[in-house]
Parts: sequence; C-alpha cells; structure tokens
Amino acid sequence: MTTITRVDARDIRFPTSRQLDGSDAMNEAPDYSATYVILHTDQEDEGHGLSFTIGRGNDLCVAAVNALAPTLVGRKLEDITADMGTFWRELTSGDSQLRWLGPEKGVMHLASAALVNAIWDLWAKREGKPIWKLLVDMSPEQLVRCLDFRFVTDAITPEEAIALLRRKAGTKGEREAEMKAEGYPGYTTSAGWLGYSEEKMRRLCREALAEGWQHFKQKVGGDIEEDRRRAAILREEIGEQRTLMMDANQMWDVDETIVNMRRLAEFNPHWIEEPTSPDDILGHAEIRRRLRGGLEGGIGVATGEHCHNRVMFKQLLQAGAIDFCQLDAARLGGLNEVIIVVLLAAKYGVPICPHGGGVGLCEYTQHISLFDYIAVSGSLEGRLLEYVDHLHEHFVDPVRIRQGRYLVPEAPGYSITMKPESLEMHRYPEGAAWQDA
Amino acid sequence: MTTITRVDARDIRFPTSRQLDGSDAMNEAPDYSATYVILHTDQEDEGHGLSFTIGRGNDLCVAAVNALAPTLVGRKLEDITADMGTFWRELTSGDSQLRWLGPEKGVMHLASAALVNAIWDLWAKREGKPIWKLLVDMSPEQLVRCLDFRFVTDAITPEEAIALLRRKAGTKGEREAEMKAEGYPGYTTSAGWLGYSEEKMRRLCREALAEGWQHFKQKVGGDIEEDRRRAAILREEIGEQRTLMMDANQMWDVDETIVNMRRLAEFNPHWIEEPTSPDDILGHAEIRRRLRGGLEGGIGVATGEHCHNRVMFKQLLQAGAIDFCQLDAARLGGLNEVIIVVLLAAKYGVPICPHGGGVGLCEYTQHISLFDYIAVSGSLEGRLLEYVDHLHEHFVDPVRIRQGRYLVPEAPGYSITMKPESLEMHRYPEGAAWQDA
Repeated sequence: MTTITRVDARDIRFPTSRQLDGSDAMNEAPDYSATYVILHTDQEDEGHGLSFTIGRGNDLCVAAVNALAPTLVGRKLEDITADMGTFWRELTSGDSQLRWLGPEKGVMHLASAALVNAIWDLWAKREGKPIWKLLVDMSPEQLVRCLDFRFVTDAITPEEAIALLRRKAGTKGEREAEMKAEGYPGYTTSAGWLGYSEEKMRRLCREALAEGWQHFKQKVGGDIEEDRRRAAILREEIGEQRTLMMDANQMWDVDETIVNMRRLAEFNPHWIEEPTSPDDILGHAEIRRRLRGGLEGGIGVATGEHCHNRVMFKQLLQAGAIDFCQLDAARLGGLNEVIIVVLLAAKYGVPICPHGGGVGLCEYTQHISLFDYIAVSGSLEGRLLEYVDHLHEHFVDPVRIRQGRYLVPEAPGYSITMKPESLEMHRYPEGAAWQDA
Repeated sequence: MTTITRVDARDIRFPTSRQLDGSDAMNEAPDYSATYVILHTDQEDEGHGLSFTIGRGNDLCVAAVNALAPTLVGRKLEDITADMGTFWRELTSGDSQLRWLGPEKGVMHLASAALVNAIWDLWAKREGKPIWKLLVDMSPEQLVRCLDFRFVTDAITPEEAIALLRRKAGTKGEREAEMKAEGYPGYTTSAGWLGYSEEKMRRLCREALAEGWQHFKQKVGGDIEEDRRRAAILREEIGEQRTLMMDANQMWDVDETIVNMRRLAEFNPHWIEEPTSPDDILGHAEIRRRLRGGLEGGIGVATGEHCHNRVMFKQLLQAGAIDFCQLDAARLGGLNEVIIVVLLAAKYGVPICPHGGGVGLCEYTQHISLFDYIAVSGSLEGRLLEYVDHLHEHFVDPVRIRQGRYLVPEAPGYSITMKPESLEMHRYPEGAAWQDA
C-alpha cells in the first residue's frame, strides 16, 4: 500500500516573455509557468503533476491546489485507483464550497488537473509503466470505472464506452508495435509565433524542414495584411504540398472570422484554430458551416485548449462545431476527464489533435494520442500531435522527436517530472532565473 | 475629478452552515461569503462591490482581486466612465497572463465582478443616484458606450442595442412612476431549503403568506420521494393558485431531469431551475423541448446563476434553451456584462428573473430588474425577482419588501455597502463571528 503523506505545490515560472516565445495575438508576452504538484508518499515513489499557465495568476492556482490538498493527504493510492471515478467526482465536486467557484472551470479546475495527473503519475510509476501503456493494458471495464459520466450520459453512457473500447481491443497489439516502430505524427508551431521576425521565421522553418517536419502552424489574428504577409512567407518556405494550420487565439467574432479567413483562404489553411471565444459552441458551429469545414475545399475548425470540461466538448461534438478536437491535458480536470473526451470524440468521429506547447503539455499529450490510437479510435486519420520546441530540457523524461514524429515514451509515469535543479532555478519569485530579471 | 487611491479587498464570511440556511442538494452546508471590495478615493466617496461565494475559496477570490487591482489604482473615475466599455475589456482581458486562467470565468471573473460593481457604485454615489436611476437616465448611446460587445455581435450589435433602447425611451417616466408607487414583484425561496424540517417549512410558508408573498420556490434534487413529499407540503400550505418553482441545483443529467420532473409535474411547477450542468446549453434546450417549456401545460426551464458570461447566455438564448434568464449580478463580470445580457434577453423575448439570495444579491438585482422594466423590456410578464430573507441586516441600505414586492431603492449607489461593524465582525478568520465557532 502507498499512502500520500504530503502535497507540495510550487509556483514555477520561466521568463519566456523576454524572447517573445509563445507570443500570439491574444497572449502577447507569456511567461510559461507551471502549477507544479509533488505527492509525497510513504514509499519511494512520488507522484508529479502540473497545470500550465502563462505567468501572473500562477500563484492563485497554487493556492487552489493547497485548498484541495486535504482531500488527498492520508489517502491510500490503491483505494483511490480502485474507484477512480468516484475519487474524481469527490475531488472536483465533493467540497461544494469550492465547487461554487467554478463549477469545473477556471482556477479551481486547473488546480484539480495538476492533482489528478499527479495521482496518475504515481499510479503508473508504481505499476512500472508509462501512462499510455497503463491505459492500453486496462480492460474496457477497468478503464470505464475510472470515469465520472455525470452530465454526459445523454451523449455517451458507461455501457457505450465499454462497447466502443471493445471494438478495437483485439488489435491493440498491432498498433502498439506500429507506434514503437514509427512513432506518432506531429506538427510544429515553433516557426509561427507572432512576435518573431521574418528572418527568424524563415530560419526556423528551414531548420524544421531539415528535421523532417511536414505540418506547420502559424499564428494569425493580428493585422490581416500582416497575417497574409506571414502566411506567404511560410508557404514560400514549406511549399504547397505541406500542411499549414492557422491559429487566431480567440481574436475574432463570428462574422470577422469569415471575413478574415476568406482573405487567408488562398494560403490553403488546413484548419482555423480558436477563431473566437472558446465558450462559443454555436459560434464555432456557424463558422464551420460557413467555412465549409469537413467539405472538399473548405477550411476545418479546431478548438479546445481553453475548452474547460467534458460538458463543453460534448456540446462541440453534438453541435457539429469542430473538425479537430484540441483537448488540453490540464485545462480539463486531468486524465480522467481527458479520457471521456477521447471517447466522445471517437463516438462522434472527430479526430483528436491535443494542445501541445507550454510547459510539459507535449510530455503529457503523447500519452493521450497513443492511447487514442492504440485503444480507442484505431485511426491516425486527421490526427496530428502539436509540437513546440520549448522547455523540454527541464524534464527528466522529455519527449523525443524523430522526423516529425513523437517516439513512444518508455519510462514509468506521465513524463511530467521536472529536474530538481530546474524546479529550484525557476521557483517564483525566489529562483535564480528571476533574480537576474 | 475622483482618483482611485487604494483597493481594499476583504474576506467576509457568515457561518450560515450552522443553521443549514441556503442548503440545497448540491450545496449542503454553505457559509455565505463575500469577496468584498472598497475603492478608496481622494474624495469623500468610496466605491463598494462584492462577489458572492459560499465559504472556502473566498480567499482565492480576494487574492484574484488583489491581482487585478493594479489596473485601477491611480485611475480617475471620470476617465473610466467616459469609456467604460474599453475599461471593462481592459480589466477582464487586458492582462493576458491573468486572462489565461479563464477566460472570463471562475475565480478571476468573480473577482472582476466585485471590482466592476465597485466602480459603478462609486460612479452612482458621485452622481447622487441609485444605480437603476443612473442607468435609466442615460441616453441609449451613453449606455451602449459602457458595453463591450466582443463575442456577441452575431446576436446583437451596438446599433441594434441602441435601437432596442430607443423603443421604450419615450415611456420611461411612466414606468418609473409605476415602480415607485407599486414596487417590483418578487418571489420567496426562504421556506424551501432542503435542510429545513417540515415544521420549519410550514411555519415559514405561513409567515410568507401573511407577508403577502404569492410565489414560492422549493429545492429539489435529493431523494425524489422526499422531493414529492416536500412539494405536497408546500402545495398544501400555499394552495393551487399560487406559483411554485423548483430548483435542482445541477443535480441531474438530461434524461434524469425528464424522469424526475414527470414525477413532480402533478405539483404544477412553474419552472425547473438548474436541472443540470450550467454549461450544458444543448442539454437545457433538449430538456425544455421534452418538458414542453413555453407551451400550455409544460414546465419552463430556468438557469443562469452559474452562467459565467455573456457568451454562454447568448447561446442559451440562441438555442431556445430557457424560458427564464436568471442572470447573477456578480457571476457575470459585473454590471457592464449584466446589461448586455439584459439586452440580449429582451431581443430574444425571454424574461429576466435574476438570481437573489446569498450575500447582497437581492441588493444588487433590484437595480437590474428596475432597469430592465423601465428602460429595456417595458414588461413585467414572466418576471419575478428572487427574494431570500438572509443577511440583509448587514447592509447600510438593505432591500425593502412590501406585500411580496421590492420597493424602489433611493440611496445613491448600488445598495451593496455593508455596515462597518458587520464587516469587522465577519472578517475571516479573525472576526468575532468566527472566534466563537
């Protein structure tokens, strides 16, 4: 048995705004940050988890983790994992006074995610498996017992989820072997940040092409002429055959999106990501209809990195609002809720293209996409895993990329454990990285 | 000119859980609380505002207010009110690092609301008018300049809003006089809390009838037989002619709602409030369709107290999901966003029945409903303002009720200023109210 003895929540920040890494039309100068959680236990293993923020306010998420922590301290891992669905509901809704602050959204839900993912990391470490393998090896019944279907039974029931998982169960071994041999396909956002000069964009593009990348993403949502100029540069560099996605980071209203995307259509964007408010399910549906998403010659609609819970994703799918489901590993309430969204997406036939970048998001999402392919959808069609070349050096078991594909992680856990010296250096505000600021 | 010199944010809590006041199926034992803001100025007036929470986590909202406060300190009230729409966007989205934690939802948005409402309170005090009167006296153009239409222009544009306000402008004086003579109609939730005994329910019902109340609300969502038993008691007390609403506080999934409301239909509920997740726009639309909301013999659907921003309300209205719009004065980002929702509701022909109760919500909402009637909708049809008989004694200018109607507030401001001794006594955790706990 493994007892959780202490929850250690840390405010970790990287001064990325100095280089304009991660700059887009909405987020001009982020300092990529992590609300970082360590679950100490009475055994050798620790559980690590984090939620990603972009700087100020990370302290609020740390305080929220501390508000939720009493639910975990003194609990046995084995009791939690024996009925993880019930545990998840208890953590996210069991304290109704805290639930009032959401429910299941914003600061509280980000905090829940860090804790939930730390539990999964601990579980996988105790089992000696990477998370994707822990999930893939579960029976459909075991997996479904980890989930809380509250508020989604009108779209998927536990019985349907089991049936859906059984569909692909017999051929899991083949896909696992394929992934180990070939890796999972990715796309890169590294060249397309809004704050980068033309020279830097061109250089990063050429480097990415040399590394074997086939799929590229550009930030838009600034001045439309400037967006067009940058799209032209990117198309010049990558050619007409490779994929170019565009990401507006919520800058537009519905009609504005249509006007702007008609001006950008000549660059043949594969999708428009976050065109408008992440809460606007019906707005995305309208945009998709008018841009002919999913149809020959149309522009697909993608969103999800700010989609805060399974109820919102359920509706995006029910409304036919998206062509690509960009779930976030820690905006949703951790892996339990992510799995429900993966199942919902499979049921509605929408590919998942998880949100990467930030701090540790690529480390998380490789497990999710592998799980989707091997155990749920059995398909790579329309699926690409975002890659951003930032901050991986701080992780003990960072993502490994070869020729534009993610190699399968092998170390036990959720790949989210950061190096002790990185944690120390980037503690906010005491760490050395902030002392010289 | 009035310069804001300091933002004072306080953690104020009332130990209401001791009496099970405010108990419902989701929120068993709330300690009604306020994230209380005082804007100090270089003039005599202060601006007061609060957001309502139910206990634990109120400290997070206070911390969020402090994170946002630098946007206000040193600013001149007159500069803010000259272009309040721009100010509102700056406060809620201007710091993109903080915006990431929402956007426009959860802890951050609750904090924004307290600050925004404090600005309005200060403005109204400087003008020597109660808020409703400040709004009613504005020209359509002035009022619309206070609003940020981002993400709602597909449903209402500034031009449409002006046209809508002009429609009723000529007859504002008549309705103002009517309200001063007769007050605004309310309903009471005081007898229907889940934690109350039968004896207490009957006693509170009889007291409410003696006071002239015609409309009553019951909490449901516990055991369905128990809900039926309590509905029967309430109907016995209030008779068949008076209105009975039911409130499930998000306890059910879509199908469960239908099953349960069919068992409660014999008690002729006027509406079912918060049947399911507040994020589930399409779920509410489906429930309304199946319960025949809006049709003869059907049950209406109401929600809104947890509806976190104008984008969500826009969709509830677009989807035909609600019969009653229960906006919350501080769950939305303060009065600016409330006004947009009032305009949207008027455009879609849905009556507003704002969320009352908690700490100070009735004090706030009387201004909103008066504004709606006098300047926007010109109608009382389907409109009832919630009243809960808790904690009004702590306010300097509390609501006044006569024969089940709200009397028009007359003192300058937003009626939300609490007595200094109440603030002192209920400071958490140092206040005397918590020392004897």
